[in-house]
Amino acid sequence: MKLLSFYEENKVKLGVKTNDGIIDVEAAAAFTGLSVPTTMLEVVTGGNKAIDQLNQLALQAPSILQEDAIQFAPAIHNPQKVLCVGANYRKHAEESGLPIPNDPIYFSKYANSLAAHRDKIELPNFTEEVDYEVELVVVIGKQTKRVSPSEALDYVFGYAVGNDLSARDLQFRSSQWLYGKAIDGFAPLGPYLVTADEVQNPQNLTLKCWVNGELRQNSNTEDMIFNVATIISDLSQIMTLEPGDVIYTGTPEGVILGMEQKTWLDSGDEIVCEIDGLGRLVNQLYRS
Amino acid sequence: MKLLSFYEENKVKLGVKTNDGIIDVEAAAAFTGLSVPTTMLEVVTGGNKAIDQLNQLALQAPSILQEDAIQFAPAIHNPQKVLCVGANYRKHAEESGLPIPNDPIYFSKYANSLAAHRDKIELPNFTEEVDYEVELVVVIGKQTKRVSPSEALDYVFGYAVGNDLSARDLQFRSSQWLYGKAIDGFAPLGPYLVTADEVQNPQNLTLKCWVNGELRQNSNTEDMIFNVATIISDLSQIMTLEPGDVIYTGTPEGVILGMEQKTWLDSGDEIVCEIDGLGRLVNQLYRS
Repeated sequence: MKLLSFYEENKVKLGVKTNDGIIDVEAAAAFTGLSVPTTMLEVVTGGNKAIDQLNQLALQAPSILQEDAIQFAPAIHNPQKVLCVGANYRKHAEESGLPIPNDPIYFSKYANSLAAHRDKIELPNFTEEVDYEVELVVVIGKQTKRVSPSEALDYVFGYAVGNDLSARDLQFRSSQWLYGKAIDGFAPLGPYLVTADEVQNPQNLTLKCWVNGELRQNSNTEDMIFNVATIISDLSQIMTLEPGDVIYTGTPEGVILGMEQKTWLDSGDEIVCEIDGLGRLVNQLYRS
Repeated sequence: MKLLSFYEENKVKLGVKTNDGIIDVEAAAAFTGLSVPTTMLEVVTGGNKAIDQLNQLALQAPSILQEDAIQFAPAIHNPQKVLCVGANYRKHAEESGLPIPNDPIYFSKYANSLAAHRDKIELPNFTEEVDYEVELVVVIGKQTKRVSPSEALDYVFGYAVGNDLSARDLQFRSSQWLYGKAIDGFAPLGPYLVTADEVQNPQNLTLKCWVNGELRQNSNTEDMIFNVATIISDLSQIMTLEPGDVIYTGTPEGVILGMEQKTWLDSGDEIVCEIDGLGRLVNQLYRS
């Protein structure tokens, strides 16, 4: 199932994508009288039972919104954690001049960085070196503490496309990357949150990124150094992951940082990120 | 005013510390019929008006709990952000072998790390190098975006004592410190959240830390490299700070990391952190 969040008069609502368009879950529930979860977090914590209820609703949904007409919200908009993994693809580590890490490298964003499909994202005036990073994003479905890699995927609710936008000049201002990563709007996520049952193997997904129509990244999650199960297990050794927590799992090669001739992103640029079966995430940049 | 959070049957409640003990705000509001905020976040977002209402309540509060008898919760328990500043005291940068930074060094924890006064904190079995760090913690009171240093303190709701517990072996496992910092329970905060009007000058506060009664850290916030106003202003250039966000502003010299003979913290150790006028934060460590 492909879930999404959208705005209606400043309220974030839950939608389900079907072949015909988007079901407004709250409206459909009111019309049909069915008892279903009406927020994304309720679906995430509800798991399979919640998905079954939404499937029932979809059979009877009376009204369908057109996808072009809705205003997307970030697929998840208020997680406790937005975790990120750095240098997690072999060829990207090479292009960045980083050694293949022995352990996963984690850094952070927070909910302020989340942005939606089609959002215009502001480039702060004091950065000149903004870069894209298409990433597979994992959304946690259950409280997760000290799980093994073999159990870890049972704790995944679903997957989404993410763009780990990075201001390289600010990222490398000090030893810690946060200042160039945790910028408002610098973590677009969506359009959909796709339930895990639709993703046969998270380690065999093609990821692509285009800038103004030019293909820049084109790889596969099989090139990850630490796979999704390892990342979840490793994080869960030190922290309790909560339903709704999101993990950006790293980007493959092809970012501007790795190019000899670096033409950084600028106002007006359109970034498209796409992952097999998860959808296309489109954002435009602007300077105010 | 000294505010605090405490548990009653797994529910987090708001308290006010008076000379006589602790006012249970919800119970006092029900008894007096006064309309007052009853959660910490409501007080933080309510600002001066909320504090005035609680002062009125305190005049009429019928029942007082004894501080020894309550179970503290973290002063704030669900902030969107737990930001931290590294190497922000001159003498601590020196003892850590770090150069005096040109820009603040930010790293992160999340709400899972918050712990309360008197909480017992688990040392994960796969770390051998746990260290204390007494810190002045700032709690943001209003949405804060691109403020100047001269405006920044107007956005502070209050201050608290924090302990930025750090697993050094995990912190330096990779270039990014998160894995040794964002551990469950590794950010004790409290006992109180003290409103900003009680802190004349955040850059002239004595901070102390004891381990099993032995004084280890004894400094003053005047030794900060980047002061509170500069940190808030600098962070607000890239991100929107939200009411309830907390910022750990760095630790002074005296941590184990800076010692020639390093005897790391262990099961049973008691850490006491104290800051002038903000209270004493006591925690014991254990291994399961």
